[in-house]
Amino acid sequence: MTGKKRIIVMNYFLKRVNKFQEKIREKELDFSIIFNSRHIYYFTGTSQNSILLIPKEDSPTLFVRRDFVRAKKESQIKDLVNIHSTSEVLKSIDGFKENEYNIGIENNFLRVGLFLYLKKYLPTSNFYDVSSIIREMRMIKDDLELEYVRKSAKVNEEVQTVSREYLKEGITELDLAGEIQKVLTENGSTFSYFDGYWGRTPFIIASGENLWARSDFPPVLSGVGSSPAVPHGPSDREIKKDDIVVVDVASVINGYNSDHSRTYYVGKPSDKFKKIYDILLNARNDGIKNMRAGFKIGDFCQKIIHSIPKEYHDYIQGYHQFREGFGHGIGLCLDELPMLVKNNNRRFKENMLIAFEPKIIIPGWGAVNFEDDFIIKKNGPPEQITNSPI
Amino acid sequence: MTGKKRIIVMNYFLKRVNKFQEKIREKELDFSIIFNSRHIYYFTGTSQNSILLIPKEDSPTLFVRRDFVRAKKESQIKDLVNIHSTSEVLKSIDGFKENEYNIGIENNFLRVGLFLYLKKYLPTSNFYDVSSIIREMRMIKDDLELEYVRKSAKVNEEVQTVSREYLKEGITELDLAGEIQKVLTENGSTFSYFDGYWGRTPFIIASGENLWARSDFPPVLSGVGSSPAVPHGPSDREIKKDDIVVVDVASVINGYNSDHSRTYYVGKPSDKFKKIYDILLNARNDGIKNMRAGFKIGDFCQKIIHSIPKEYHDYIQGYHQFREGFGHGIGLCLDELPMLVKNNNRRFKENMLIAFEPKIIIPGWGAVNFEDDFIIKKNGPPEQITNSPI
Repeated sequence: MTGKKRIIVMNYFLKRVNKFQEKIREKELDFSIIFNSRHIYYFTGTSQNSILLIPKEDSPTLFVRRDFVRAKKESQIKDLVNIHSTSEVLKSIDGFKENEYNIGIENNFLRVGLFLYLKKYLPTSNFYDVSSIIREMRMIKDDLELEYVRKSAKVNEEVQTVSREYLKEGITELDLAGEIQKVLTENGSTFSYFDGYWGRTPFIIASGENLWARSDFPPVLSGVGSSPAVPHGPSDREIKKDDIVVVDVASVINGYNSDHSRTYYVGKPSDKFKKIYDILLNARNDGIKNMRAGFKIGDFCQKIIHSIPKEYHDYIQGYHQFREGFGHGIGLCLDELPMLVKNNNRRFKENMLIAFEPKIIIPGWGAVNFEDDFIIKKNGPPEQITNSPI
Repeated sequence: MTGKKRIIVMNYFLKRVNKFQEKIREKELDFSIIFNSRHIYYFTGTSQNSILLIPKEDSPTLFVRRDFVRAKKESQIKDLVNIHSTSEVLKSIDGFKENEYNIGIENNFLRVGLFLYLKKYLPTSNFYDVSSIIREMRMIKDDLELEYVRKSAKVNEEVQTVSREYLKEGITELDLAGEIQKVLTENGSTFSYFDGYWGRTPFIIASGENLWARSDFPPVLSGVGSSPAVPHGPSDREIKKDDIVVVDVASVINGYNSDHSRTYYVGKPSDKFKKIYDILLNARNDGIKNMRAGFKIGDFCQKIIHSIPKEYHDYIQGYHQFREGFGHGIGLCLDELPMLVKNNNRRFKENMLIAFEPKIIIPGWGAVNFEDDFIIKKNGPPEQITNSPI
């Protein structure tokens, strides 16, 4: 990438850094030390093993453990230093042992061991969380990010195409998962990151009684998994005639997640299935109309509930487990801000990327779920970037 | 799982808890609070979203966020409490706000945010790292763990069988990766955990010039990845005639990793390839002879170096990057203790599980690498649990 294209791409990264600097100046921080590889990628364009120092003004410096040659090639910020240990980063700060600096760190990512090490090396400084600043920033996507998630969404549509073709009586959830994982991998999709610290399988396949089975998170419609070691995702359950099957998959291209699901019926759909499918689809389509900049997210959720007949209210998003809400932001992590929950006073903003996933889950019967990703527009309807048949 | 089988399995978990309690008594800790889902699985048999309190004596208690019903079914320890927030765990400790407790936490896992919360709730207590105790314990596997890794190793042999069949001119590294990921997924293999905080693709496919390309970790023989976002693993490089291809894969069954690689040649192997292949294979086979309880790990590494002709020494494990060593322990994480490095004074012990991966990597030419997993025996040769043709 050279010449004009390179300069255009670099501008995205510099804008992100500048915005972050503005925010840390507001908090009266002197600088931030960034360790999270997703954040380093977000601010620099590389995720080589490194530590990023962002001062309140002036240029940031990327301290690269390895590989320096490759980081130099990938990084959109210019000041790079080749290091062998974290102490070199700290020693680069003027008067690091004496000055009382106010330093931003990532409280929801940094490990205690490293934190204690920083405190020991910078004994007279104070530490403040900047994770929340970065989470807020990441909520609104720029054009480069949107380009990446659109690519990711296309791979995820292919996942649903393959699922429709492959799904039949007699295969197991794991067989279907294998076909899906093949599509993801062939297309260069990697694994999903999470801000929280439980790792997760990047996709859920749940059929039959697994549709309402309990799991670690969320409690329903996660599948039961292949062992108690990773208690969600596909299992060895054999798919039968008249099963409902939910295929809910994350694809990750250039580090950006898309999240997309469809609900299938093995054989000729029953009347009850068709009825509940239509109820949910109508509520979903009503919901999309309110997905525009300025509309309050809590109200958006309330309106979807009202679009669903009362007798199904207990089953929305799982029996009495409504706290998960109707979806979430999406980007470098699979679950980001904003959360689509009833009590959220935040309003939709232009260029938020939203995974909207209404569900009806009825224990003893089954579930219906559609998940699509939308880019919020300033005026008018959102752009739906996952367009599998529904 | 009921009756005698359940009691036998339960014994493994109780022994792990008892051993840990012995260790924390030695350190004069009052109790430990365990958050890492791998550790919770290790001590209880479930990895439902929960927090484990292990006192220095008496029974441990598992505080379950969700799902309680499923945790109750899976857990091999008996005392379970259904909670909604972390504060409930702390409130269950007598005099939590007044007493000066010595509390074990996982410094190499726990996030700063949660640490500061614990310190606020337990203001008069002191915190000590127990990650190292658990890492040391996990180094020696019990029979239940060995049963799981043997299953994982069988899936990983299947990965190599499929690779041998599928590998040909014209496909890309990602195409091969797709076939492999399908095998892994169909067999219920999930993703690898790491103690460190960089996520990684669970397998490496590197061909041609990607064999010596630089990456984040380790610097060589990691592949270049499909984008700077995840800079290792398979890429879209098309495989050509006379390419060397390394397929290095982690399979995870019941939460236990196996790690296995083979080196392939596309077409009729060149004389140089055959020569280097044989040099490495001989050094490897010599090495295995010293892989027995009581043998010093540093000496084991030195002897392998001496088995390789001097002119190749700069290329062992990558040009001048020998610090990675010849392999690592393996289990609930892909990289565990012990590390097979030159300066390690630790000795092999019975029931260590070792991933042994000698490599010769020559920039501008290519690489050879074999990785197999071995269980160290008290007397005599180790048990090799990955037995693909070599």
